[in-house]
Amino acid sequence: MPSLPPIRPEDERRATARPPVGAFDPAPADSDDSARFDYLLRLGDDALILGQRLSEWCGHAPSVEVDLSLANIALDLVGQATLFLGHAGEMEGQGRDGDTLAFRRDVLDFRNCLLVEQPNGDFAQTMVRQFLFSTWQKMLFEHLLGSKDALIAGVAAKAVKEVTYHQELAAEWVVRLGDGTAEIRARMQAGLEWNWRFIPELFEMDETAAEMASRGIGADVAAFRDDYDSKVRAVLAEATLEAPHDQRPILGGRGGHHSEHLGHLLCTMQFLPRTYPDAKW
Amino acid sequence: MPSLPPIRPEDERRATARPPVGAFDPAPADSDDSARFDYLLRLGDDALILGQRLSEWCGHAPSVEVDLSLANIALDLVGQATLFLGHAGEMEGQGRDGDTLAFRRDVLDFRNCLLVEQPNGDFAQTMVRQFLFSTWQKMLFEHLLGSKDALIAGVAAKAVKEVTYHQELAAEWVVRLGDGTAEIRARMQAGLEWNWRFIPELFEMDETAAEMASRGIGADVAAFRDDYDSKVRAVLAEATLEAPHDQRPILGGRGGHHSEHLGHLLCTMQFLPRTYPDAKW
Repeated sequence: MPSLPPIRPEDERRATARPPVGAFDPAPADSDDSARFDYLLRLGDDALILGQRLSEWCGHAPSVEVDLSLANIALDLVGQATLFLGHAGEMEGQGRDGDTLAFRRDVLDFRNCLLVEQPNGDFAQTMVRQFLFSTWQKMLFEHLLGSKDALIAGVAAKAVKEVTYHQELAAEWVVRLGDGTAEIRARMQAGLEWNWRFIPELFEMDETAAEMASRGIGADVAAFRDDYDSKVRAVLAEATLEAPHDQRPILGGRGGHHSEHLGHLLCTMQFLPRTYPDAKW
Repeated sequence: MPSLPPIRPEDERRATARPPVGAFDPAPADSDDSARFDYLLRLGDDALILGQRLSEWCGHAPSVEVDLSLANIALDLVGQATLFLGHAGEMEGQGRDGDTLAFRRDVLDFRNCLLVEQPNGDFAQTMVRQFLFSTWQKMLFEHLLGSKDALIAGVAAKAVKEVTYHQELAAEWVVRLGDGTAEIRARMQAGLEWNWRFIPELFEMDETAAEMASRGIGADVAAFRDDYDSKVRAVLAEATLEAPHDQRPILGGRGGHHSEHLGHLLCTMQFLPRTYPDAKW
């Protein structure tokens, strides 16, 4: 897709960034565990942050049926996040469970892709984001069915059914809305313009991703990039929408360099456990 | 103004509301100090919450000059809040300083009026809110110049100059916008409709307000209600805007019954100190 060089956080900025005050210790020194821990955070944070975003629609969606659909997708994603983050916490062995990882990390320690933290915007923008992400996540989980990490393989086996439904629902909405009035077509096109630049990050093979793929734990995302592009373009064609051109990709989420939107999302998501740290439920 | 009965939180709801988990102890048992503490929270929280709201405009206002005006008003208000809340903390004698009262109370413990927590909306809505509040706050501080509480009298003496400027600036904008295009007139009228129902709360004389007034510490707000109405209506007339009719007043902020908006505001305002409780600045 895009041919422009990506916007990538400078290594310099990374090196000079102050560590967050009171942050947790980094992942274990053992490089084997460290990469796997990081990979589990990516899987868990993608699901957690998109789940939180979708839950913002609760009570505000265009119809009761859609409200329930979005809430159900959010619940599926939060369920996936619980499993991935719980596994990360156990593996780390420093006493952090899934809740601690979800509710006590600050923004620089999150490892989700930038796509899932993008604002909901209108219903069209939300549906474009959902379609672009679920199409990718479905293919990812299909590849993770054979992961050598038993928990990852197990979660993928359960989640791939959920995500297949998310993908179908989102694709149906893309077609339905794209083929609609001039107003809604314009909104869909604007939603595509907004979200398109975050696709390349989904297929980035950095050190962690490459190590996980080579060890048979993670997926080689490059292997399904062409499939992804074909699938996305086929749905857009059916929706009579145009794929945007020549956007400069933005990278950085996997390394903790997030947009301003994520901090605001965490303010809301983490308020309760941070305000009442000793509360029992 | 309005003749409809006010919407007031039921005493029953108040009695059965669960106390917030981990909340601070209530104000001192001595009823004398308790009323004064509560009154200082009202003065401080009005200023703090409106200051936080206005700071949301920072970097987003229609022009650089307006951006700076709003930021300066916000700073004045936060300064007032620091003094009032600091005094409340000292008087309480339980080790809570102004920062603790600002950043570690949860929503049910805030005592600001509902007007100041209303969302910014567009620039028109913000300016209507500012005009309605500053006009009241200026009259309030003029009455508090003679308070028997030396700190309240001192803050009022300093703040009345600031608030006079806030009031003039807001009134000028109301006239300028109200006398503008059909679009901006409609927005001003909508801003009036939104904020109008929160005026009666400014003049509510509940037990605390009555006790403070009778002891010469607080102001008898009823004494300047007519002046307030005249002043507001004169500016609206000059702006060729119509005062809304027959809105049902909404009360409750002084007792901790807030709109949903306040919780979201606190999420953002309190995130940093709650996330890094041991940080030193």
